[in-house]
Amino acid sequence: MFSDTDHAAMAQALALAERGMYTTTPNPRVGCVLSKDGKIIGQGFTQPAGQDHAEIQALKDAAARGNDPKGATAFVTLEPCSHFGRTPPCADALVRAGIARVVAAMEDPNPTVSGRGLQRLREAGVDVRCGLLEKEARELNIGFVNRMTRGLPWVRVKVAASLDGGTALHDGSSQWITGQAARDDGHAWRARASAILTGIGTVRDDNPQLNVRAVDTPRQPQRVVVDSRLEIPLDARLLTPDTGDFAKPVLVFCAFDDTARRRALEARGAEVVVLPNPHGKVELRHMLEELGRRGINELHVEAGFKLNGSLIREHCADELLIYLAPKLLGDAQGMFHLPPLARLQDAAAFRWHDVRMIGEDLRLIARRADHV
Amino acid sequence: MFSDTDHAAMAQALALAERGMYTTTPNPRVGCVLSKDGKIIGQGFTQPAGQDHAEIQALKDAAARGNDPKGATAFVTLEPCSHFGRTPPCADALVRAGIARVVAAMEDPNPTVSGRGLQRLREAGVDVRCGLLEKEARELNIGFVNRMTRGLPWVRVKVAASLDGGTALHDGSSQWITGQAARDDGHAWRARASAILTGIGTVRDDNPQLNVRAVDTPRQPQRVVVDSRLEIPLDARLLTPDTGDFAKPVLVFCAFDDTARRRALEARGAEVVVLPNPHGKVELRHMLEELGRRGINELHVEAGFKLNGSLIREHCADELLIYLAPKLLGDAQGMFHLPPLARLQDAAAFRWHDVRMIGEDLRLIARRADHV
Repeated sequence: MFSDTDHAAMAQALALAERGMYTTTPNPRVGCVLSKDGKIIGQGFTQPAGQDHAEIQALKDAAARGNDPKGATAFVTLEPCSHFGRTPPCADALVRAGIARVVAAMEDPNPTVSGRGLQRLREAGVDVRCGLLEKEARELNIGFVNRMTRGLPWVRVKVAASLDGGTALHDGSSQWITGQAARDDGHAWRARASAILTGIGTVRDDNPQLNVRAVDTPRQPQRVVVDSRLEIPLDARLLTPDTGDFAKPVLVFCAFDDTARRRALEARGAEVVVLPNPHGKVELRHMLEELGRRGINELHVEAGFKLNGSLIREHCADELLIYLAPKLLGDAQGMFHLPPLARLQDAAAFRWHDVRMIGEDLRLIARRADHV
Repeated sequence: MFSDTDHAAMAQALALAERGMYTTTPNPRVGCVLSKDGKIIGQGFTQPAGQDHAEIQALKDAAARGNDPKGATAFVTLEPCSHFGRTPPCADALVRAGIARVVAAMEDPNPTVSGRGLQRLREAGVDVRCGLLEKEARELNIGFVNRMTRGLPWVRVKVAASLDGGTALHDGSSQWITGQAARDDGHAWRARASAILTGIGTVRDDNPQLNVRAVDTPRQPQRVVVDSRLEIPLDARLLTPDTGDFAKPVLVFCAFDDTARRRALEARGAEVVVLPNPHGKVELRHMLEELGRRGINELHVEAGFKLNGSLIREHCADELLIYLAPKLLGDAQGMFHLPPLARLQDAAAFRWHDVRMIGEDLRLIARRADHV
């Protein structure tokens, strides 16, 4: 069904899509390659929200190179859109340009529009194929797919630990357990996330900026804090306003509305959202739903063992990103604060997804066992 | 200095040496290939102690095949011995057979005889080379090398844990955290060890047999228990007598001599060794020296977090063999019972040596950072 040249063109489209890794949110990362007579005549990838989608970029690229797309094949890593959003439908643009064949890696994961873009192309007489390198395409937009299908961000919990599972001494000190290479790698994961989440405990212990420093990115992720009692100090470093085209206010989720505290935080540029659960804590599942509504695809968590444990207990963590340093901390804070199990078989189940060395540390990625 | 055919012959000698993995203790695993006119004319590997060394096996193999070893090259993974032990010197046998060239992977690690076998060969006019695939040869006999150079067994501490470092629930239950493939793999590590060590806590919680079951071996490792107050139940499963040609009494290390208990254990076929430290526990370093004197090359530890912690604290663990299941136990027993650190930089330092998947679990091997 797909030729070797089809595979090569789609692989190139995926590589282009990756170039939007840090910038397309809340849109998916998409790449497009236009191929004609065995040659690439134009290519593009999704620009920041409100600007061109990948298909439009590729058509513009072809025009700039003096190439006529009539009769060409378009390889796209995601089904072209069929609706007017902030930009006109890409499916129509491809038809107007005379594209003869469209190969998509996957359908749009949004169940309300899925298949419509391909249908529109077929109705216009375009030869349409779907499913080439689909697994890779889904992986690239794991957060967007999760938000479209479940209404929730993909929650990735990052942990830096000793090989015996220690994440901090009892005085809270945790800087640094892992090496420089692991910490830099962590910034690349921050950069691709739509938002970074932490808890009030980490704000108190580490006073993090929660921004991206070790890798180059034009966009800083939205910062989010779980702070049930609005205890965040007004001089906390993460309240420093974000700047630039992508700037967003810091989001603070709490369980009690305290007008004075809220106004003080709002004066610092933060937005406060009250979402209590019956135990006087933030209802984490509702928080994720709210973040989903706000277009957060990948939520990167860098928190302490208490919030990490709550996310596990409330089935809110999809992926664990663990840097394991080859050292022993012994009696120390663990990764996840969870109550003792009555039986071993009740343990929260994950599966290993990826393992590699980062500098002198190991990086392990595990995903919830009930995700395919 | 070494040709491609030299490399291939030594790689074959190493593969032969591995066939003695489960049986040569206390001797090293050695392989020998005799090569003449580009053909292998004989090969062998070390037989159980008191029987033929690799070189003698190879010479016998050549004779059995009707090949004349005169003028051949002998590839040996360890310097041929020059002394009369339970068998006559192999260096002399090679000279007598007319071997023209000897390539050894490494010198004998025993500092009192190192180089003497090669010297003897050189004096007899043999062309001698040393150092081909030396790293691989050392790795194969890591326990023997450690015992010869430091007088101590190579101590490998096996741990099966959840990804957050849990090894047992608070009631002691730990069967099973990892999957069948990991447990079977653990038996292969037991099989290669000269001895298996556990503590009284594990005897109480799990009542293990501490023998090799999942892999085929003619030899069972010596079983060793750290039991400061001689509390091991007389019906403990590990006191079941070992049988066969390699049978050894169970060794029990304690801190107090209790004549009645000792005699009861001796009646069960055990040997009791009293080695107290000033805290009323077994002096672990002296225990290792004693095991070294008894010819234990690799000591495989399967104990609970208390004895594991003591081994780390007393700098007795060389290698950690960790099976990491992709699940979370939360509040549970850890890997190593160690006191809280005052500073992160005081953490016991290892380095990652090997990482791979075993079934659905990860297997991590770390070695002490101060080992090369």
